[in-house]
Amino acid sequence: MAMTGVLRPGHGAIRVLDLEEAVHHYRDILGMVETGRDAQGRVYLKCWDERDHNSVVLRQADRAGLDFFGFKVRDKATLDKMEADLKAYGLKTERIPAGEMLATGERVRFELPSGHLIELYAEKKAVGNGLQVTNPAPWTKASENGIAPVRLDHCLLYGPNIAEVQKIFTEVLGFYLVERVLAPDNETNAAIWMSCSHKVHDIAFVEHPEPGKLHHLSFLLDSWEEVLRASDIMSMNGVPIDIGPTRHGITRGCTIYAFDPSGNRFETFMGGYQPYPDYEPTTWTFDGLGAGGGLDYPQRKLHETFLTVVT
Amino acid sequence: MAMTGVLRPGHGAIRVLDLEEAVHHYRDILGMVETGRDAQGRVYLKCWDERDHNSVVLRQADRAGLDFFGFKVRDKATLDKMEADLKAYGLKTERIPAGEMLATGERVRFELPSGHLIELYAEKKAVGNGLQVTNPAPWTKASENGIAPVRLDHCLLYGPNIAEVQKIFTEVLGFYLVERVLAPDNETNAAIWMSCSHKVHDIAFVEHPEPGKLHHLSFLLDSWEEVLRASDIMSMNGVPIDIGPTRHGITRGCTIYAFDPSGNRFETFMGGYQPYPDYEPTTWTFDGLGAGGGLDYPQRKLHETFLTVVT
Amino acid sequence: MAMTGVLRPGHGAIRVLDLEEAVHHYRDILGMVETGRDAQGRVYLKCWDERDHNSVVLRQADRAGLDFFGFKVRDKATLDKMEADLKAYGLKTERIPAGEMLATGERVRFELPSGHLIELYAEKKAVGNGLQVTNPAPWTKASENGIAPVRLDHCLLYGPNIAEVQKIFTEVLGFYLVERVLAPDNETNAAIWMSCSHKVHDIAFVEHPEPGKLHHLSFLLDSWEEVLRASDIMSMNGVPIDIGPTRHGITRGCTIYAFDPSGNRFETFMGGYQPYPDYEPTTWTFDGLGAGGGLDYPQRKLHETFLTVVT
Amino acid sequence: MAMTGVLRPGHGAIRVLDLEEAVHHYRDILGMVETGRDAQGRVYLKCWDERDHNSVVLRQADRAGLDFFGFKVRDKATLDKMEADLKAYGLKTERIPAGEMLATGERVRFELPSGHLIELYAEKKAVGNGLQVTNPAPWTKASENGIAPVRLDHCLLYGPNIAEVQKIFTEVLGFYLVERVLAPDNETNAAIWMSCSHKVHDIAFVEHPEPGKLHHLSFLLDSWEEVLRASDIMSMNGVPIDIGPTRHGITRGCTIYAFDPSGNRFETFMGGYQPYPDYEPTTWTFDGLGAGGGLDYPQRKLHETFLTVVT
Repeated sequence: MAMTGVLRPGHGAIRVLDLEEAVHHYRDILGMVETGRDAQGRVYLKCWDERDHNSVVLRQADRAGLDFFGFKVRDKATLDKMEADLKAYGLKTERIPAGEMLATGERVRFELPSGHLIELYAEKKAVGNGLQVTNPAPWTKASENGIAPVRLDHCLLYGPNIAEVQKIFTEVLGFYLVERVLAPDNETNAAIWMSCSHKVHDIAFVEHPEPGKLHHLSFLLDSWEEVLRASDIMSMNGVPIDIGPTRHGITRGCTIYAFDPSGNRFETFMGGYQPYPDYEPTTWTFDGLGAGGGLDYPQRKLHETFLTVVT
Repeated sequence: MAMTGVLRPGHGAIRVLDLEEAVHHYRDILGMVETGRDAQGRVYLKCWDERDHNSVVLRQADRAGLDFFGFKVRDKATLDKMEADLKAYGLKTERIPAGEMLATGERVRFELPSGHLIELYAEKKAVGNGLQVTNPAPWTKASENGIAPVRLDHCLLYGPNIAEVQKIFTEVLGFYLVERVLAPDNETNAAIWMSCSHKVHDIAFVEHPEPGKLHHLSFLLDSWEEVLRASDIMSMNGVPIDIGPTRHGITRGCTIYAFDPSGNRFETFMGGYQPYPDYEPTTWTFDGLGAGGGLDYPQRKLHETFLTVVT
Repeated sequence: MAMTGVLRPGHGAIRVLDLEEAVHHYRDILGMVETGRDAQGRVYLKCWDERDHNSVVLRQADRAGLDFFGFKVRDKATLDKMEADLKAYGLKTERIPAGEMLATGERVRFELPSGHLIELYAEKKAVGNGLQVTNPAPWTKASENGIAPVRLDHCLLYGPNIAEVQKIFTEVLGFYLVERVLAPDNETNAAIWMSCSHKVHDIAFVEHPEPGKLHHLSFLLDSWEEVLRASDIMSMNGVPIDIGPTRHGITRGCTIYAFDPSGNRFETFMGGYQPYPDYEPTTWTFDGLGAGGGLDYPQRKLHETFLTVVT
Repeated sequence: MAMTGVLRPGHGAIRVLDLEEAVHHYRDILGMVETGRDAQGRVYLKCWDERDHNSVVLRQADRAGLDFFGFKVRDKATLDKMEADLKAYGLKTERIPAGEMLATGERVRFELPSGHLIELYAEKKAVGNGLQVTNPAPWTKASENGIAPVRLDHCLLYGPNIAEVQKIFTEVLGFYLVERVLAPDNETNAAIWMSCSHKVHDIAFVEHPEPGKLHHLSFLLDSWEEVLRASDIMSMNGVPIDIGPTRHGITRGCTIYAFDPSGNRFETFMGGYQPYPDYEPTTWTFDGLGAGGGLDYPQRKLHETFLTVVT
């Protein structure tokens, strides 16, 4: 099979300081669809064009950040195989029973050396994207409700030991390295963008002393015009923008970084290119991240918040 | 691994009636990069953002059409495995030695029941996309030479027995069905769009009595504005447009169909969505192809040439 | 003063066969704002970004078409001067009292040799565009309700004697010729596009034997992406599209022609260039209208409906 | 007539520190067309879609800045009338003979209380935009040479006494106020945007103690996608970007501010709306300029350089 193993980012579970404020943000401003609330009080949302039940889960807590990030795998056999592979590699895994998250099957959870909890699962209830299955229109009214990204695209995480993280993703989980930023030593990687598909990133990491940190969850838009519209909607609604609209040199994506009401950064972006596992990774020098345009291609500067503000 | 088996469409080898006229078309108007000519006189081209040596091969002949269409697979072990699988399925395969095509490794060729020659190969020389590997700019001057698509995206082929073709692609080659058009009988498929990735199509077929026919090779653009620019460039250069600019209901792609000087149809398009193998395929009724907007969503009509003009 | 005399197209009063069906079309699909209904039962609408009370007036009648088309002039002194000039030129004028149309001052009406009623007026109540006057946002929710053009842009009218019409607009009303199509005789004009501003057209005429005919009212969009969105919305709502999305060679505008439920054609378009009265007009030969790309630059054909379907 | 008096910004004459470096910038990066050099060594350029001979004139000098800014008026009678009006208003005018600037007729020059030299002229040789006058294509190769704006759009000037400047432009030259920023006193204007057309600005001023300063010359692009392309080209060529890509709240324009090699700021932008002289001006409070999004709608901040860096 061509698309095997890990298919795609499936869900990001994030902590928010005020649940209703967060729901307003993710549902009414970002424009996701609320699909359920569970007995723990967690709120589930999906992007309009996603077909599975949820991709973002909000949990009220006293500090912001990421609880866990999950990937959907091809099927249950893959899930079993990957759990075995992770164990064989030396990682401890945990099975979380089906139903612990709404509409979601059994999950295999493990902790990365960077301090992040990653999950794999094979089943999440298909609820559709609101379009007919027969002779569908190209979009629905929901695609213009708020910013309305089409999907959860990837996340960028900050933590220690990303060389080890890279090994786990590439050697065990079948990802490949798409782009990287070299540390000032010009040898080790300060940041890595990895893909399990032909997206420019399904997950990315920056080396950082504090473990388990979230830099951003990222949501995909269809065009640069939608990026402008997103920035307008953010400004109209008092969403604080961190960087953008601009183009990343890294991945070529055209982007806005902004913060949810709890201070969790999120990205809305479009573009990039289509890499494949046989491509030579693109390398950015550490200076390239700033003056080389890696972070902000037009401005060619290293916005200070990029390296310092995480949740 | 996540991206395994067949990675992507790799090359389309097409017959043209006048080689230099065709080179002018594909290089100067469509805006591909000429990368070589071989001893047989075949001309090799690639899209500017492709990294392998070639994706279109032109051969002068006395009738237009497709010689063969090739897919790149992950590695040589995959190539061997797939050849064995094809044989086990009952298909005859042929090995074409490395170097028979410029910069291209050994190919495994087989004939589909639709009369088309399909090839698999694991190696094609990486020549890069003209950008630096370190701290690259997002694009080059070549990206504005002519229409300048970023890649060969897929092809649509016409021939008999597409039910059998679908089985081969899905059961042997690891593709999955993304969309389909039902025949007037409402049971069998009149047309199928299949993916080996999360593109809406890596290859597509329409049931047709004559075997081995080419409907179009398709090239990817980055935006709807580039589709407009493409149509301007076609008109400026006397390239006859068949349909568009418009949106397909099928795949949601935004498109122009036009003809090369030999009458081979080609498409330049953007957009669509990102399907995965766990998605339920979208179904179009036969009426849906025309009045349902499947072919031409704004016009909701079945352009007569769509079903009748092939090479 | 720099902008004097006639400022802009102000209102188009059109006849529809079923008022509520028409209101649904213009308000809910085209996305205009309904601003009032008068004692005669006429319905008034404006585009979201227009500031005056109305730009389209719908009247139920037993045949479709245009009742009259009005231009706003700079002030009452201009209105008086222009009426005097029209009379001096030999045209009969009529004063229609303030208030005959909702929120609209006194109008000076006259009939063109082409059989169309044209009006001038100096006053229409400013109701604003829904944005704050102080520190406004760039757009409102109304700008995404339906197709939501920003303004009534121009109209194209069909009738006899357009050479005489051109004289009236250019010699009396201060317009200038921007583009024209020559008749097959290569001397007289078969079609003329005239501007009272630096728009490519504020009004246009095609020579046609039947007097008083409407080809289309035209509404302005901000981008080619909005033209695509417009065509999607039309298709979703069963609005029959005549031509497009495509680019006109004439004016360079990017366009869709479609029909309201009564058969009145309307256009949604973007683009074009900014001409000035000191520019040499652009000329299209009669063949240029079709094969030259004047009507449909990508397709380079003269769609038969363009010359034959009017109301 | 409808377009009378002052038609449009015609030329900006700027001082540069190194002529050939400046020519490289304006011709090869900004993408203007060089149309001539005069005996004084001044270099003349025009945007590709402008029809008159020149719109930017470069003069080598030991400090950067603006020599003068000129507007084209409708005809020679207008020029005479306006000179008389300026004199009647109390301004001293000077006649500069035809031919002093290449391809340009007699100019009437006067100094504003802000310390800027403004010129009016009625004649500049029409050299065309490179398109055929009969059956033209919508664009030429020159429209993709560098950033390639379609026109010089406006300028923003800094100096004292803008209340008086506003009176001259509105009472003598026929402009009208489109938008303004209130000073902290909430009464006087700190900045004014004025139009002689239905553009959101043909000229703008910011109150500033030093006379005769240039904030930027502005060049028009056709789309937000071209703004992205402009920022890419600037970054590729080492052009320092000041602000953007972003949207101004003021005028709604979507913009990049950057610097030429001599430190003269220039803008490439698209969008805005179409105001008319009967529109109520939009007002921004002084806080609105920054936190209200007037300068940078997404970021809602007052970039410090906006108020301090001028030439």
